[in-house]
Amino acid sequence: MADFTAFLANVAGSVEGYLDRVVPAADTPPERLHEAVRWSLLGGGKRVRPALVIATAETFGGKGHLAYGAAAALELIHTYSLIHDDLPSMDDDDLRRGRATCHKQFGEATAILAGDVLQTIAFQVLTNDELLPGGDKRLQIISLIAAAAADMVIGQQLDLDAEGAQVTLGQLEQIHRKKTGSIISASVIVGGLIGDATGDEITALTRYAEALGLLFQVTDDLLDITQSTETLGKTAGKDIVFSKATYPSLIGLEGTRQLAGELAATADSALSAIERDTSLLSGMVDRVSNRVS
Amino acid sequence: MADFTAFLANVAGSVEGYLDRVVPAADTPPERLHEAVRWSLLGGGKRVRPALVIATAETFGGKGHLAYGAAAALELIHTYSLIHDDLPSMDDDDLRRGRATCHKQFGEATAILAGDVLQTIAFQVLTNDELLPGGDKRLQIISLIAAAAADMVIGQQLDLDAEGAQVTLGQLEQIHRKKTGSIISASVIVGGLIGDATGDEITALTRYAEALGLLFQVTDDLLDITQSTETLGKTAGKDIVFSKATYPSLIGLEGTRQLAGELAATADSALSAIERDTSLLSGMVDRVSNRVS
Repeated sequence: MADFTAFLANVAGSVEGYLDRVVPAADTPPERLHEAVRWSLLGGGKRVRPALVIATAETFGGKGHLAYGAAAALELIHTYSLIHDDLPSMDDDDLRRGRATCHKQFGEATAILAGDVLQTIAFQVLTNDELLPGGDKRLQIISLIAAAAADMVIGQQLDLDAEGAQVTLGQLEQIHRKKTGSIISASVIVGGLIGDATGDEITALTRYAEALGLLFQVTDDLLDITQSTETLGKTAGKDIVFSKATYPSLIGLEGTRQLAGELAATADSALSAIERDTSLLSGMVDRVSNRVS
Repeated sequence: MADFTAFLANVAGSVEGYLDRVVPAADTPPERLHEAVRWSLLGGGKRVRPALVIATAETFGGKGHLAYGAAAALELIHTYSLIHDDLPSMDDDDLRRGRATCHKQFGEATAILAGDVLQTIAFQVLTNDELLPGGDKRLQIISLIAAAAADMVIGQQLDLDAEGAQVTLGQLEQIHRKKTGSIISASVIVGGLIGDATGDEITALTRYAEALGLLFQVTDDLLDITQSTETLGKTAGKDIVFSKATYPSLIGLEGTRQLAGELAATADSALSAIERDTSLLSGMVDRVSNRVS
Protein backbone atom coordinates (compact mmCIF):
# COMPACT_ATOMS: atom_id res chain seq x y z
CA MET A 1 0.00 0.00 0.00
CA ALA A 2 3.00 2.28 0.59
CA ASP A 3 4.01 1.47 -2.99
CA PHE A 4 0.55 2.35 -4.25
CA THR A 5 0.60 5.72 -2.51
CA ALA A 6 3.97 6.41 -4.11
CA PHE A 7 2.58 5.32 -7.50
CA LEU A 8 -0.37 7.73 -7.20
CA ALA A 9 1.85 10.62 -6.10
CA ASN A 10 4.27 9.93 -8.95
CA VAL A 11 1.47 9.81 -11.54
CA ALA A 12 -0.13 12.99 -10.20
CA GLY A 13 3.18 14.84 -10.44
CA SER A 14 4.02 13.58 -13.93
CA VAL A 15 0.51 14.26 -15.25
CA GLU A 16 0.63 17.77 -13.79
CA GLY A 17 3.89 18.37 -15.67
CA TYR A 18 2.45 16.99 -18.90
CA LEU A 19 -0.73 19.09 -18.62
CA ASP A 20 1.34 22.18 -17.84
CA ARG A 21 3.24 21.70 -21.13
CA VAL A 22 0.23 21.10 -23.41
CA VAL A 23 -1.80 24.18 -22.46
CA PRO A 24 -0.59 27.67 -23.41
CA ALA A 25 1.31 29.72 -20.82
CA ALA A 26 -0.81 32.13 -18.73
CA ASP A 27 0.75 35.13 -20.50
CA THR A 28 -0.18 33.88 -23.98
CA PRO A 29 -2.88 36.17 -25.41
CA PRO A 30 -5.74 36.15 -24.79
CA GLU A 31 -4.44 35.94 -21.21
CA ARG A 32 -7.88 35.75 -19.60
CA LEU A 33 -8.72 32.52 -21.46
CA HIS A 34 -5.40 30.86 -20.73
CA GLU A 35 -5.42 31.90 -17.07
CA ALA A 36 -8.88 30.36 -16.79
CA VAL A 37 -7.73 27.14 -18.45
CA ARG A 38 -4.76 26.83 -16.10
CA TRP A 39 -6.82 27.83 -13.04
CA SER A 40 -9.17 24.90 -13.52
CA LEU A 41 -6.70 22.36 -14.89
CA LEU A 42 -3.58 22.74 -12.75
CA GLY A 43 -2.71 22.77 -9.08
CA GLY A 44 -5.38 20.40 -7.83
CA GLY A 45 -7.38 17.33 -8.67
CA LYS A 46 -6.78 13.76 -7.59
CA ARG A 47 -5.92 12.67 -11.16
CA VAL A 48 -7.90 9.45 -10.69
CA ARG A 49 -8.55 8.99 -14.41
CA PRO A 50 -4.90 9.44 -15.43
CA ALA A 51 -3.88 7.06 -12.64
CA LEU A 52 -6.27 4.44 -14.03
CA VAL A 53 -4.91 4.80 -17.58
CA ILE A 54 -1.34 4.51 -16.42
CA ALA A 55 -1.99 1.74 -13.88
CA THR A 56 -3.71 -0.35 -16.53
CA ALA A 57 -1.05 0.24 -19.18
CA GLU A 58 1.58 -0.62 -16.55
CA THR A 59 -0.28 -3.79 -15.59
CA PHE A 60 -0.16 -4.98 -19.19
CA GLY A 61 3.48 -5.13 -20.23
CA GLY A 62 4.85 -2.21 -18.22
CA LYS A 63 3.62 0.37 -20.76
CA GLY A 64 2.66 3.07 -18.26
CA HIS A 65 5.29 5.49 -19.57
CA LEU A 66 3.69 5.38 -23.06
CA ALA A 67 0.24 6.27 -21.75
CA TYR A 68 0.62 9.87 -20.57
CA GLY A 69 -0.97 11.40 -23.66
CA ALA A 70 -4.17 9.39 -23.16
CA ALA A 71 -4.06 10.01 -19.40
CA ALA A 72 -3.78 13.75 -19.94
CA ALA A 73 -6.53 13.77 -22.58
CA LEU A 74 -8.98 12.09 -20.22
CA GLU A 75 -8.11 14.57 -17.45
CA LEU A 76 -8.60 17.47 -19.91
CA ILE A 77 -12.05 16.13 -20.81
CA HIS A 78 -12.91 15.60 -17.15
CA THR A 79 -11.85 19.16 -16.33
CA TYR A 80 -13.85 20.69 -19.18
CA SER A 81 -16.93 18.85 -17.89
CA LEU A 82 -16.36 20.16 -14.35
CA ILE A 83 -16.15 23.77 -15.59
CA HIS A 84 -19.36 23.48 -17.60
CA ASP A 85 -21.18 21.50 -14.86
CA ASP A 86 -20.40 24.25 -12.36
CA LEU A 87 -21.97 27.02 -14.49
CA PRO A 88 -24.97 28.93 -13.10
CA SER A 89 -27.39 27.35 -15.58
CA MET A 90 -26.12 23.88 -14.63
CA ASP A 91 -25.13 22.97 -11.03
CA ASP A 92 -24.36 26.62 -10.13
CA ASP A 93 -21.41 25.90 -7.87
CA ASP A 94 -18.89 28.33 -6.38
CA LEU A 95 -16.18 25.98 -5.22
CA ARG A 96 -14.18 23.28 -6.99
CA ARG A 97 -10.93 21.55 -6.09
CA GLY A 98 -10.66 23.87 -3.11
CA ARG A 99 -10.85 27.15 -5.02
CA ALA A 100 -13.38 29.37 -6.79
CA THR A 101 -15.04 27.76 -9.81
CA CYS A 102 -13.91 28.99 -13.20
CA HIS A 103 -16.92 31.23 -13.86
CA LYS A 104 -16.73 32.78 -10.37
CA GLN A 105 -13.14 33.73 -11.05
CA PHE A 106 -13.23 34.64 -14.77
CA GLY A 107 -16.90 35.17 -15.66
CA GLU A 108 -19.33 32.90 -17.46
CA ALA A 109 -18.28 33.64 -21.03
CA THR A 110 -14.63 32.84 -20.43
CA ALA A 111 -15.55 29.75 -18.39
CA ILE A 112 -17.63 28.41 -21.28
CA LEU A 113 -14.75 29.06 -23.68
CA ALA A 114 -12.18 27.54 -21.30
CA GLY A 115 -14.23 24.34 -21.15
CA ASP A 116 -14.64 24.35 -24.92
CA VAL A 117 -10.93 24.67 -25.60
CA LEU A 118 -9.99 22.09 -22.97
CA GLN A 119 -12.05 19.54 -24.88
CA THR A 120 -10.30 20.59 -28.10
CA ILE A 121 -6.85 20.35 -26.50
CA ALA A 122 -7.68 16.81 -25.37
CA PHE A 123 -8.02 15.76 -29.01
CA GLN A 124 -4.92 17.74 -29.99
CA VAL A 125 -2.94 15.83 -27.36
CA LEU A 126 -4.34 12.51 -28.56
CA THR A 127 -3.25 13.18 -32.13
CA ASN A 128 0.08 14.90 -31.38
CA ASP A 129 1.52 12.90 -28.47
CA GLU A 130 4.73 11.15 -29.52
CA LEU A 131 4.54 8.00 -27.40
CA LEU A 132 1.02 6.66 -27.91
CA PRO A 133 0.69 3.87 -30.50
CA GLY A 134 0.39 5.28 -34.03
CA GLY A 135 -1.86 4.76 -37.04
CA ASP A 136 -5.13 2.88 -36.75
CA LYS A 137 -4.50 1.79 -33.14
CA ARG A 138 -4.40 5.43 -32.13
CA LEU A 139 -7.56 6.15 -34.12
CA GLN A 140 -9.24 3.35 -32.15
CA ILE A 141 -8.14 4.98 -28.89
CA ILE A 142 -9.37 8.43 -29.97
CA SER A 143 -12.69 6.98 -31.12
CA LEU A 144 -13.18 5.22 -27.80
CA ILE A 145 -12.42 8.37 -25.81
CA ALA A 146 -14.74 10.46 -28.01
CA ALA A 147 -17.56 7.95 -27.50
CA ALA A 148 -17.03 8.16 -23.74
CA ALA A 149 -17.03 11.97 -23.87
CA ALA A 150 -20.36 11.88 -25.74
CA ASP A 151 -21.81 9.49 -23.16
CA MET A 152 -20.64 11.82 -20.40
CA VAL A 153 -22.70 14.68 -21.90
CA ILE A 154 -25.70 12.37 -22.22
CA GLY A 155 -25.31 11.53 -18.53
CA GLN A 156 -25.18 15.20 -17.64
CA GLN A 157 -28.46 15.82 -19.51
CA LEU A 158 -30.07 12.78 -17.82
CA ASP A 159 -28.94 14.24 -14.50
CA LEU A 160 -30.51 17.62 -15.35
CA ASP A 161 -33.74 15.94 -16.42
CA ALA A 162 -33.86 14.02 -13.13
CA GLU A 163 -33.64 17.10 -10.91
CA GLY A 164 -36.71 17.22 -8.68
CA ALA A 165 -38.16 14.14 -10.39
CA GLN A 166 -38.84 10.74 -8.84
CA VAL A 167 -35.87 8.58 -9.82
CA THR A 168 -35.60 4.81 -9.50
CA LEU A 169 -32.43 2.98 -8.50
CA GLY A 170 -32.10 1.76 -12.10
CA GLN A 171 -32.36 5.29 -13.47
CA LEU A 172 -29.82 6.56 -10.95
CA GLU A 173 -27.39 3.84 -11.99
CA GLN A 174 -27.95 4.74 -15.65
CA ILE A 175 -27.16 8.43 -14.95
CA HIS A 176 -23.92 7.53 -13.21
CA ARG A 177 -22.88 4.93 -15.79
CA LYS A 178 -23.09 7.66 -18.42
CA LYS A 179 -22.01 10.75 -16.50
CA THR A 180 -19.04 9.37 -14.54
CA GLY A 181 -18.72 5.73 -15.53
CA SER A 182 -18.07 6.28 -19.22
CA ILE A 183 -14.83 8.23 -18.69
CA ILE A 184 -13.68 5.88 -15.90
CA SER A 185 -14.27 2.88 -18.18
CA ALA A 186 -12.53 4.57 -21.10
CA SER A 187 -9.52 5.27 -18.85
CA VAL A 188 -9.15 1.60 -18.01
CA ILE A 189 -9.87 0.23 -21.49
CA VAL A 190 -7.52 2.70 -23.20
CA GLY A 191 -4.79 1.69 -20.73
CA GLY A 192 -5.47 -1.92 -21.69
CA LEU A 193 -5.29 -1.15 -25.41
CA ILE A 194 -1.97 0.65 -24.96
CA GLY A 195 -0.70 -2.42 -23.07
CA ASP A 196 -1.94 -4.75 -25.84
CA ALA A 197 -4.37 -6.56 -23.55
CA THR A 198 -6.20 -9.49 -25.18
CA GLY A 199 -9.92 -9.43 -25.96
CA ASP A 200 -10.68 -11.53 -22.85
CA GLU A 201 -8.60 -9.20 -20.73
CA ILE A 202 -10.44 -6.15 -22.12
CA THR A 203 -13.73 -7.86 -21.20
CA ALA A 204 -12.51 -8.38 -17.63
CA LEU A 205 -11.19 -4.80 -17.49
CA THR A 206 -14.58 -3.51 -18.64
CA ARG A 207 -16.33 -5.37 -15.78
CA TYR A 208 -13.73 -4.01 -13.35
CA ALA A 209 -14.11 -0.45 -14.62
CA GLU A 210 -17.91 -0.46 -14.55
CA ALA A 211 -17.94 -1.59 -10.93
CA LEU A 212 -15.18 0.87 -10.00
CA GLY A 213 -16.99 3.75 -11.73
CA LEU A 214 -20.19 3.09 -9.78
CA LEU A 215 -18.19 2.60 -6.58
CA PHE A 216 -16.67 6.00 -7.17
CA GLN A 217 -20.11 7.61 -7.44
CA VAL A 218 -21.56 5.72 -4.50
CA THR A 219 -18.69 6.86 -2.27
CA ASP A 220 -19.09 10.41 -3.64
CA ASP A 221 -22.72 10.36 -2.50
CA LEU A 222 -21.63 9.22 0.95
CA LEU A 223 -18.93 11.89 1.17
CA ASP A 224 -21.41 14.61 0.15
CA ILE A 225 -23.39 13.79 3.29
CA THR A 226 -20.64 12.93 5.75
CA GLN A 227 -17.82 15.35 4.90
CA SER A 228 -17.32 19.09 5.23
CA THR A 229 -16.97 21.51 2.32
CA GLU A 230 -13.41 22.19 3.45
CA THR A 231 -12.41 18.51 3.29
CA LEU A 232 -14.10 17.95 -0.06
CA GLY A 233 -12.80 21.09 -1.76
CA LYS A 234 -16.28 21.47 -3.25
CA THR A 235 -19.61 22.42 -1.70
CA ALA A 236 -20.85 19.65 0.61
CA GLY A 237 -24.52 18.80 1.09
CA LYS A 238 -25.45 19.99 -2.40
CA ASP A 239 -27.34 16.82 -3.27
CA ILE A 240 -29.89 17.53 -0.53
CA VAL A 241 -30.21 21.24 -1.41
CA PHE A 242 -30.85 20.35 -5.06
CA SER A 243 -33.06 17.39 -4.00
CA LYS A 244 -30.97 15.24 -6.27
CA ALA A 245 -31.54 11.53 -6.16
CA THR A 246 -28.58 9.81 -4.49
CA TYR A 247 -27.92 6.30 -3.25
CA PRO A 248 -28.40 7.33 0.40
CA SER A 249 -31.73 9.01 -0.45
CA LEU A 250 -32.94 5.87 -2.23
CA ILE A 251 -31.50 3.02 -0.15
CA GLY A 252 -30.29 4.71 3.05
CA LEU A 253 -26.79 5.18 4.46
CA GLU A 254 -26.40 1.57 5.54
CA GLY A 255 -27.68 0.22 2.24
CA THR A 256 -25.29 2.52 0.40
CA ARG A 257 -22.30 1.34 2.46
CA GLN A 258 -23.29 -2.25 1.70
CA LEU A 259 -23.58 -1.48 -2.01
CA ALA A 260 -20.09 0.04 -1.93
CA GLY A 261 -18.76 -3.20 -0.46
CA GLU A 262 -20.50 -5.26 -3.14
CA LEU A 263 -19.14 -3.07 -5.96
CA ALA A 264 -15.60 -3.34 -4.57
CA ALA A 265 -15.99 -7.13 -4.47
CA THR A 266 -17.26 -7.17 -8.08
CA ALA A 267 -14.29 -5.09 -9.23
CA ASP A 268 -11.81 -7.35 -7.44
CA SER A 269 -13.49 -10.47 -8.77
CA ALA A 270 -13.18 -9.13 -12.33
CA LEU A 271 -9.44 -8.69 -11.76
CA SER A 272 -9.08 -12.31 -10.65
CA ALA A 273 -9.78 -13.36 -14.27
CA ILE A 274 -6.61 -11.54 -15.39
CA GLU A 275 -3.39 -13.54 -15.09
CA ARG A 276 -1.13 -10.58 -14.38
CA ASP A 277 0.00 -8.72 -11.31
CA THR A 278 -3.12 -6.58 -10.87
CA SER A 279 -2.07 -5.01 -7.57
CA LEU A 280 -2.17 -1.46 -8.98
CA LEU A 281 -5.75 -1.98 -10.15
CA SER A 282 -6.88 -3.56 -6.88
CA GLY A 283 -5.07 -0.73 -5.10
CA MET A 284 -7.42 1.69 -6.85
CA VAL A 285 -10.44 -0.23 -5.52
CA ASP A 286 -9.07 -0.11 -1.98
CA ARG A 287 -8.27 3.59 -2.31
CA VAL A 288 -11.80 4.47 -3.45
CA SER A 289 -13.38 2.23 -0.80
CA ASN A 290 -11.23 3.71 1.94
CA ARG A 291 -12.57 7.20 1.21
CA VAL A 292 -15.68 6.28 3.18
CA SER A 293 -14.55 3.61 5.65
CA MET B 1 -21.82 29.62 -62.68
CA ALA B 2 -24.91 27.46 -63.19
CA ASP B 3 -22.67 24.46 -62.52
CA PHE B 4 -21.33 26.06 -59.36
CA THR B 5 -24.84 26.66 -58.01
CA ALA B 6 -25.65 23.02 -58.70
CA PHE B 7 -22.40 21.97 -56.97
CA LEU B 8 -23.30 23.97 -53.84
CA ALA B 9 -26.84 22.62 -53.75
CA ASN B 10 -25.58 19.07 -54.19
CA VAL B 11 -23.00 19.43 -51.40
CA ALA B 12 -25.55 21.02 -49.05
CA GLY B 13 -27.96 18.14 -49.62
CA SER B 14 -25.34 15.42 -49.21
CA VAL B 15 -23.83 17.02 -46.10
CA GLU B 16 -27.30 17.37 -44.58
CA GLY B 17 -27.83 13.65 -45.12
CA TYR B 18 -24.44 12.79 -43.63
CA LEU B 19 -25.03 14.99 -40.56
CA ASP B 20 -28.49 13.51 -40.10
CA ARG B 21 -26.94 10.04 -39.90
CA VAL B 22 -24.11 10.83 -37.44
CA VAL B 23 -26.20 12.49 -34.72
CA PRO B 24 -28.66 10.44 -32.65
CA ALA B 25 -32.35 10.45 -33.67
CA ALA B 26 -34.53 13.00 -31.89
CA ASP B 27 -36.32 10.24 -29.94
CA THR B 28 -33.05 8.83 -28.52
CA PRO B 29 -32.94 9.52 -24.76
CA PRO B 30 -32.24 12.06 -23.45
CA GLU B 31 -34.62 13.48 -26.07
CA ARG B 32 -34.17 17.11 -25.04
CA LEU B 33 -30.43 16.99 -25.77
CA HIS B 34 -30.81 15.28 -29.12
CA GLU B 35 -33.67 17.54 -30.21
CA ALA B 36 -31.44 20.52 -29.38
CA VAL B 37 -28.53 19.06 -31.36
CA ARG B 38 -30.72 18.47 -34.39
CA TRP B 39 -32.46 21.85 -34.06
CA SER B 40 -29.18 23.71 -34.42
CA LEU B 41 -27.41 21.37 -36.83
CA LEU B 42 -30.04 20.40 -39.40
CA GLY B 43 -32.47 22.19 -41.68
CA GLY B 44 -30.49 25.32 -42.32
CA GLY B 45 -27.01 26.72 -42.80
CA LYS B 46 -25.20 27.53 -46.02
CA ARG B 47 -22.68 24.73 -45.46
CA VAL B 48 -19.86 26.98 -46.69
CA ARG B 49 -17.15 25.07 -44.82
CA PRO B 50 -18.22 21.64 -46.09
CA ALA B 51 -18.42 23.08 -49.60
CA LEU B 52 -14.84 24.33 -49.28
CA VAL B 53 -13.57 20.94 -48.10
CA ILE B 54 -15.29 19.10 -50.89
CA ALA B 55 -14.48 21.68 -53.59
CA THR B 56 -10.79 21.52 -52.68
CA ALA B 57 -10.67 17.72 -52.51
CA GLU B 58 -12.48 17.65 -55.86
CA THR B 59 -10.03 20.13 -57.37
CA PHE B 60 -7.12 17.85 -56.45
CA GLY B 61 -7.75 14.51 -58.11
CA GLY B 62 -11.53 14.37 -57.94
CA LYS B 63 -11.55 13.20 -54.32
CA GLY B 64 -14.64 15.15 -53.21
CA HIS B 65 -16.61 11.98 -52.49
CA LEU B 66 -13.95 10.90 -49.94
CA ALA B 67 -14.13 14.16 -48.01
CA TYR B 68 -17.60 14.11 -46.45
CA GLY B 69 -16.36 13.01 -43.02
CA ALA B 70 -14.04 16.01 -42.76
CA ALA B 71 -16.67 18.32 -44.26
CA ALA B 72 -19.23 17.18 -41.69
CA ALA B 73 -16.74 17.48 -38.81
CA LEU B 74 -15.97 21.09 -39.66
CA GLU B 75 -19.69 21.90 -39.88
CA LEU B 76 -20.25 20.21 -36.50
CA ILE B 77 -17.52 22.35 -34.96
CA HIS B 78 -18.91 25.49 -36.61
CA THR B 79 -22.38 24.70 -35.28
CA TYR B 80 -21.17 24.07 -31.73
CA SER B 81 -19.44 27.47 -31.81
CA LEU B 82 -22.63 29.19 -33.00
CA ILE B 83 -24.65 27.66 -30.15
CA HIS B 84 -22.15 28.76 -27.52
CA ASP B 85 -21.59 32.20 -29.12
CA ASP B 86 -25.34 32.87 -28.99
CA LEU B 87 -25.59 32.18 -25.21
CA PRO B 88 -26.72 35.03 -22.92
CA SER B 89 -23.26 35.43 -21.37
CA MET B 90 -21.70 35.63 -24.85
CA ASP B 91 -23.44 37.41 -27.76
CA ASP B 92 -26.93 36.88 -26.24
CA ASP B 93 -28.75 36.30 -29.51
CA ASP B 94 -32.30 35.07 -30.10
CA LEU B 95 -32.20 34.21 -33.77
CA ARG B 96 -29.92 31.96 -35.82
CA ARG B 97 -30.32 30.39 -39.24
CA GLY B 98 -33.84 31.82 -39.34
CA ARG B 99 -35.09 30.20 -36.13
CA ALA B 100 -34.81 30.57 -32.36
CA THR B 101 -31.31 30.05 -30.99
CA CYS B 102 -30.68 26.80 -29.16
CA HIS B 103 -30.88 28.26 -25.65
CA LYS B 104 -34.09 30.18 -26.46
CA GLN B 105 -35.68 26.93 -27.55
CA PHE B 106 -34.19 24.42 -25.08
CA GLY B 107 -32.76 26.45 -22.20
CA GLU B 108 -29.17 27.40 -21.42
CA ALA B 109 -28.06 24.17 -19.77
CA THR B 110 -29.13 21.99 -22.67
CA ALA B 111 -27.68 24.47 -25.18
CA ILE B 112 -24.29 24.31 -23.46
CA LEU B 113 -24.43 20.51 -23.51
CA ALA B 114 -25.60 20.40 -27.14
CA GLY B 115 -22.59 22.50 -28.15
CA ASP B 116 -20.29 20.31 -26.07
CA VAL B 117 -21.47 17.09 -27.64
CA LEU B 118 -21.41 18.52 -31.17
CA GLN B 119 -17.70 19.16 -30.72
CA THR B 120 -17.26 15.60 -29.46
CA ILE B 121 -19.24 14.14 -32.38
CA ALA B 122 -16.96 16.03 -34.78
CA PHE B 123 -13.99 14.04 -33.49
CA GLN B 124 -16.01 10.82 -33.49
CA VAL B 125 -16.81 11.38 -37.16
CA LEU B 126 -13.18 12.12 -37.96
CA THR B 127 -12.03 8.85 -36.39
CA ASN B 128 -14.92 6.63 -37.54
CA ASP B 129 -15.63 7.80 -41.10
CA GLU B 130 -14.89 5.00 -43.57
CA LEU B 131 -13.71 7.01 -46.58
CA LEU B 132 -11.16 9.47 -45.19
CA PRO B 133 -7.50 8.43 -45.57
CA GLY B 134 -6.41 6.10 -42.74
CA GLY B 135 -3.52 5.86 -40.32
CA ASP B 136 -1.11 8.75 -39.83
CA LYS B 137 -2.60 10.83 -42.67
CA ARG B 138 -5.91 10.87 -40.83
CA LEU B 139 -4.16 11.78 -37.58
CA GLN B 140 -2.62 14.75 -39.43
CA ILE B 141 -6.08 15.83 -40.59
CA ILE B 142 -7.56 15.51 -37.08
CA SER B 143 -4.64 17.42 -35.57
CA LEU B 144 -5.06 20.24 -38.07
CA ILE B 145 -8.80 20.51 -37.41
CA ALA B 146 -8.25 20.46 -33.63
CA ALA B 147 -5.68 23.26 -33.91
CA ALA B 148 -8.17 25.31 -35.93
CA ALA B 149 -10.91 24.66 -33.35
CA ALA B 150 -8.58 25.89 -30.59
CA ASP B 151 -7.77 29.02 -32.60
CA MET B 152 -11.49 29.62 -33.08
CA VAL B 153 -12.00 29.72 -29.30
CA ILE B 154 -9.03 32.07 -28.94
CA GLY B 155 -10.67 34.35 -31.52
CA GLN B 156 -13.92 34.28 -29.61
CA GLN B 157 -12.13 35.37 -26.42
CA LEU B 158 -10.28 38.13 -28.34
CA ASP B 159 -13.66 39.25 -29.64
CA LEU B 160 -15.11 39.34 -26.10
CA ASP B 161 -12.10 41.28 -24.83
CA ALA B 162 -12.51 43.82 -27.63
CA GLU B 163 -16.15 44.65 -26.82
CA GLY B 164 -16.40 48.35 -26.11
CA ALA B 165 -12.63 48.78 -26.47
CA GLN B 166 -10.77 50.82 -29.07
CA VAL B 167 -9.65 48.30 -31.71
CA THR B 168 -7.14 48.88 -34.49
CA LEU B 169 -7.51 47.47 -37.99
CA GLY B 170 -4.67 45.06 -37.22
CA GLN B 171 -6.41 43.81 -34.07
CA LEU B 172 -9.70 43.41 -35.92
CA GLU B 173 -7.97 41.33 -38.59
CA GLN B 174 -6.34 39.20 -35.89
CA ILE B 175 -9.75 38.53 -34.26
CA HIS B 176 -11.25 37.42 -37.56
CA ARG B 177 -8.23 35.35 -38.59
CA LYS B 178 -8.67 33.35 -35.39
CA LYS B 179 -12.43 33.37 -34.92
CA THR B 180 -13.60 32.68 -38.48
CA GLY B 181 -10.46 32.33 -40.58
CA SER B 182 -8.99 29.33 -38.78
CA ILE B 183 -11.89 27.01 -39.60
CA ILE B 184 -12.17 28.35 -43.17
CA SER B 185 -8.45 27.74 -43.70
CA ALA B 186 -8.65 24.27 -42.16
CA SER B 187 -11.53 23.42 -44.51
CA VAL B 188 -9.43 24.27 -47.55
CA ILE B 189 -6.18 22.70 -46.34
CA VAL B 190 -7.86 19.47 -45.23
CA GLY B 191 -9.51 19.25 -48.64
CA GLY B 192 -6.05 19.67 -50.17
CA LEU B 193 -4.57 16.95 -47.95
CA ILE B 194 -7.35 14.53 -48.89
CA GLY B 195 -6.62 15.30 -52.55
CA ASP B 196 -2.85 14.74 -52.02
CA ALA B 197 -1.98 18.32 -52.96
CA THR B 198 1.77 19.05 -53.04
CA GLY B 199 3.52 21.26 -50.49
CA ASP B 200 3.56 24.18 -52.95
CA GLU B 201 -0.12 23.70 -53.65
CA ILE B 202 -0.91 23.67 -49.91
CA THR B 203 1.00 26.96 -49.60
CA ALA B 204 -1.09 28.49 -52.39
CA LEU B 205 -4.28 27.07 -50.85
CA THR B 206 -3.36 28.63 -47.52
CA ARG B 207 -3.00 32.08 -49.12
CA TYR B 208 -6.31 31.55 -50.92
CA ALA B 209 -8.08 30.45 -47.73
CA GLU B 210 -6.74 33.30 -45.60
CA ALA B 211 -7.98 35.89 -48.10
CA LEU B 212 -11.31 34.09 -48.50
CA GLY B 213 -11.80 33.85 -44.73
CA LEU B 214 -11.27 37.58 -44.29
CA LEU B 215 -13.45 38.30 -47.33
CA PHE B 216 -16.17 36.29 -45.68
CA GLN B 217 -15.96 38.40 -42.52
CA VAL B 218 -15.72 41.70 -44.38
CA THR B 219 -18.87 40.88 -46.35
CA ASP B 220 -20.55 39.74 -43.11
CA ASP B 221 -19.87 43.18 -41.64
CA LEU B 222 -21.40 44.83 -44.71
CA LEU B 223 -24.46 42.58 -44.61
CA ASP B 224 -25.00 43.32 -40.90
CA ILE B 225 -25.48 46.97 -41.86
CA THR B 226 -27.23 46.71 -45.19
CA GLN B 227 -29.56 43.71 -44.81
CA SER B 228 -32.68 42.98 -42.77
CA THR B 229 -32.93 40.43 -39.97
CA GLU B 230 -35.34 38.44 -42.10
CA THR B 231 -32.91 38.16 -45.02
CA LEU B 232 -29.97 37.28 -42.76
CA GLY B 233 -31.79 34.71 -40.63
CA LYS B 234 -29.96 36.27 -37.67
CA THR B 235 -30.36 39.59 -35.89
CA ALA B 236 -29.18 42.45 -38.14
CA GLY B 237 -27.52 45.60 -36.83
CA LYS B 238 -26.08 43.81 -33.80
CA ASP B 239 -22.57 45.12 -34.37
CA ILE B 240 -23.74 48.69 -33.80
CA VAL B 241 -25.87 47.79 -30.75
CA PHE B 242 -22.88 46.00 -29.18
CA SER B 243 -20.54 48.75 -30.38
CA LYS B 244 -18.38 46.05 -31.89
CA ALA B 245 -15.48 47.10 -34.03
CA THR B 246 -16.22 46.28 -37.67
CA TYR B 247 -14.57 47.12 -40.97
CA PRO B 248 -17.23 49.73 -41.82
CA SER B 249 -16.80 51.38 -38.39
CA LEU B 250 -13.02 51.56 -38.89
CA ILE B 251 -12.64 52.31 -42.62
CA GLY B 252 -16.15 53.27 -43.75
CA LEU B 253 -18.56 51.54 -46.14
CA GLU B 254 -16.66 52.51 -49.27
CA GLY B 255 -13.30 51.48 -47.81
CA THR B 256 -14.82 48.16 -46.75
CA ARG B 257 -16.21 47.49 -50.25
CA GLN B 258 -12.78 48.26 -51.68
CA LEU B 259 -11.12 45.89 -49.18
CA ALA B 260 -13.55 43.16 -50.21
CA GLY B 261 -12.48 43.63 -53.82
CA GLU B 262 -8.79 43.44 -52.87
CA LEU B 263 -9.28 40.27 -50.84
CA ALA B 264 -11.15 38.62 -53.71
CA ALA B 265 -8.28 39.53 -56.02
CA THR B 266 -5.74 38.11 -53.55
CA ALA B 267 -7.68 34.86 -53.33
CA ASP B 268 -7.93 34.54 -57.11
CA SER B 269 -4.26 35.37 -57.54
CA ALA B 270 -3.33 32.58 -55.11
CA LEU B 271 -5.32 30.15 -57.22
CA SER B 272 -3.40 31.15 -60.36
CA ALA B 273 -0.31 29.43 -58.86
CA ILE B 274 -2.16 26.11 -58.94
CA GLU B 275 -2.03 24.23 -62.25
CA ARG B 276 -5.40 22.58 -61.93
CA ASP B 277 -8.95 23.48 -62.87
CA THR B 278 -9.67 25.75 -59.90
CA SER B 279 -13.08 26.91 -61.08
CA LEU B 280 -14.86 25.52 -58.00
CA LEU B 281 -12.52 27.47 -55.72
CA SER B 282 -12.81 30.70 -57.72
CA GLY B 283 -16.57 30.11 -57.77
CA MET B 284 -16.50 30.33 -53.96
CA VAL B 285 -14.77 33.71 -54.15
CA ASP B 286 -17.38 35.02 -56.58
CA ARG B 287 -20.19 33.67 -54.45
CA VAL B 288 -18.92 35.38 -51.30
CA SER B 289 -18.22 38.64 -53.17
CA ASN B 290 -21.65 38.63 -54.76
CA ARG B 291 -23.33 38.61 -51.35
CA VAL B 292 -22.64 42.33 -51.14
CA SER B 293 -22.48 43.52 -54.74
